[in-house]
Amino acid sequence: MIKIAVDAMGGDFGCEPIVKGVVEALKQREFEPFLVGDEEAIKEFIPNEFIDRVRFVQADEILTMKEEATSAFKKPNTSIYKAIELVKDGVCEAIVSAGHSGATMSLATLKIGRLSGVLRPGIATFMPCSKEGSKTLLLDVGANVDCKAEHIFQFGVLGLAYARNIMNIKNPKIGILSNGEEESKGDEPTKEAFKLLKRLDSFIGNVEGAQIFDGSVDVVVCDGFVGNIVLKTSEGAAAAISKLIKNEIKNSFLAKLGGLLLKPGFKNIKKQTDYAEYGGAPLLGIKKCVIISHGKSSSKAIKNAIFQAIAFAKSDITCDVVNELEKFKKDK
Amino acid sequence: MIKIAVDAMGGDFGCEPIVKGVVEALKQREFEPFLVGDEEAIKEFIPNEFIDRVRFVQADEILTMKEEATSAFKKPNTSIYKAIELVKDGVCEAIVSAGHSGATMSLATLKIGRLSGVLRPGIATFMPCSKEGSKTLLLDVGANVDCKAEHIFQFGVLGLAYARNIMNIKNPKIGILSNGEEESKGDEPTKEAFKLLKRLDSFIGNVEGAQIFDGSVDVVVCDGFVGNIVLKTSEGAAAAISKLIKNEIKNSFLAKLGGLLLKPGFKNIKKQTDYAEYGGAPLLGIKKCVIISHGKSSSKAIKNAIFQAIAFAKSDITCDVVNELEKFKKDK
Repeated sequence: MIKIAVDAMGGDFGCEPIVKGVVEALKQREFEPFLVGDEEAIKEFIPNEFIDRVRFVQADEILTMKEEATSAFKKPNTSIYKAIELVKDGVCEAIVSAGHSGATMSLATLKIGRLSGVLRPGIATFMPCSKEGSKTLLLDVGANVDCKAEHIFQFGVLGLAYARNIMNIKNPKIGILSNGEEESKGDEPTKEAFKLLKRLDSFIGNVEGAQIFDGSVDVVVCDGFVGNIVLKTSEGAAAAISKLIKNEIKNSFLAKLGGLLLKPGFKNIKKQTDYAEYGGAPLLGIKKCVIISHGKSSSKAIKNAIFQAIAFAKSDITCDVVNELEKFKKDK
Repeated sequence: MIKIAVDAMGGDFGCEPIVKGVVEALKQREFEPFLVGDEEAIKEFIPNEFIDRVRFVQADEILTMKEEATSAFKKPNTSIYKAIELVKDGVCEAIVSAGHSGATMSLATLKIGRLSGVLRPGIATFMPCSKEGSKTLLLDVGANVDCKAEHIFQFGVLGLAYARNIMNIKNPKIGILSNGEEESKGDEPTKEAFKLLKRLDSFIGNVEGAQIFDGSVDVVVCDGFVGNIVLKTSEGAAAAISKLIKNEIKNSFLAKLGGLLLKPGFKNIKKQTDYAEYGGAPLLGIKKCVIISHGKSSSKAIKNAIFQAIAFAKSDITCDVVNELEKFKKDK
């Protein structure tokens, strides 16, 4: 049975949504969660019938969001440190953390370690699409700034492996984010990475910002500085539109009625674009599965993050990454 | 009277929307348009009562979008070349072009020339906000990739001058786009530019993607590679949401009714976020006013681009830029 370490304490809302999310997941799947944190506090949210299906690992401290990522290394009694150790020591195959994302990344990279050949792990996130049932994997969205071409190329390999093994896309399309479709477009690292990515059969060339949302590409790679800005820009644009619509609905009786009639429709859209449907962003390029969830994760988000971790742990993604990178090592 | 050169031919839909836009503008303001292109074709769209208010400059060729920007220099008979010459020679104070934007930029930079002290001109664009009546000026959105810190700093000065002189904001807030609010966030050029921008009283520090749309900042600066991606990402996100809403409206009779009742609301939002409301992106840092409009501009967009050009030509923006840059020259 797959064993998953869960930092039960690091989220913005305490352990309640995290533990409840784990219980929700237990209702639907077979796995063994290792809940790391204050056992007494955690137990409160576990119904009796589930108590035998979970394991507890006591951790007395919590790393707060205000602390530097690097300070995590000096705090072996924090829930995130202990959760990472469980994976490092081979007790668990995966970790789900809604805690300090910088610390999770640093601890995972240095303690669990990178896959052979990987220069820099990348955070991948799912972007919703207007095409039904489709979503785009965007990476890196913030683990690395000032990427070199080789790093961006490797994000392509990581994304390719994720799309094939976890998203079950047989022939994923991979694009590189640029300021125009022509090969001549891009800043220096992008143009260099374009040349390296050409070695992948799945590479379709430069893509522009709008293509992230239209279902024409499965994986989009970019520098983490750019990816993080793209992620927050699209969240911001969506929030602004939602606010504008709400204001219009308030404007008149007829508009209010219209809003009411469209409520199920808006709900559907929210579901299609909701972060909680994915639950977390995988940190790709690490030896084991690391899912970084938002500090404000709901129990639904945690449940889905766990489902993602199970799919990851069951898959051959790590072998695929190592083999694929090995190919290009030989090419040289 | 302000004289404005208009490349009447370069747009995607021929001269009709452009000439009609000029006529619309003439109905509301006093200015003298110099319509550059095929006189016979242009005249067709000018009602008799306006014929005495426009000037014609014959140009036999059109630079197509497929051509390289640099090839414009070898084609002195194209409408864009002749329109730029009118400004270069001091006949006109401003140019509005819906033609080849790369060519417009290159010709403007090399023929009209940069303002004293300006290293690289930047294209500025207006981003719609959820806060009523407010919009954010984003630059550079594509004129320059691989910017150095000094270039990004100068975009701050250019944006500041635009906000003060054209947007009439007394104390504009300027931010730099980054992957987090803390000063330590950013790629190398961004972190360096942060230090330079600190010299401006108006500088509020790093801003994240979402702040572009919430009205909390007036001017956002970034590298042109990033800015172009941000622009196209937000357009793409908005288009995707619009498509999702349209799909939901089609879904049931009640949803259709809801959509009908909300139609005026959606129309309002479209108006608030419509590119045509601004009509064009100013190329800042050039000695004269250069407004780059979209190839697909409607006559309304051209009309508003002309209003922007009039405001620019009447303002003290060029002096403000030169004086402001001079300050920091002395600082060194």
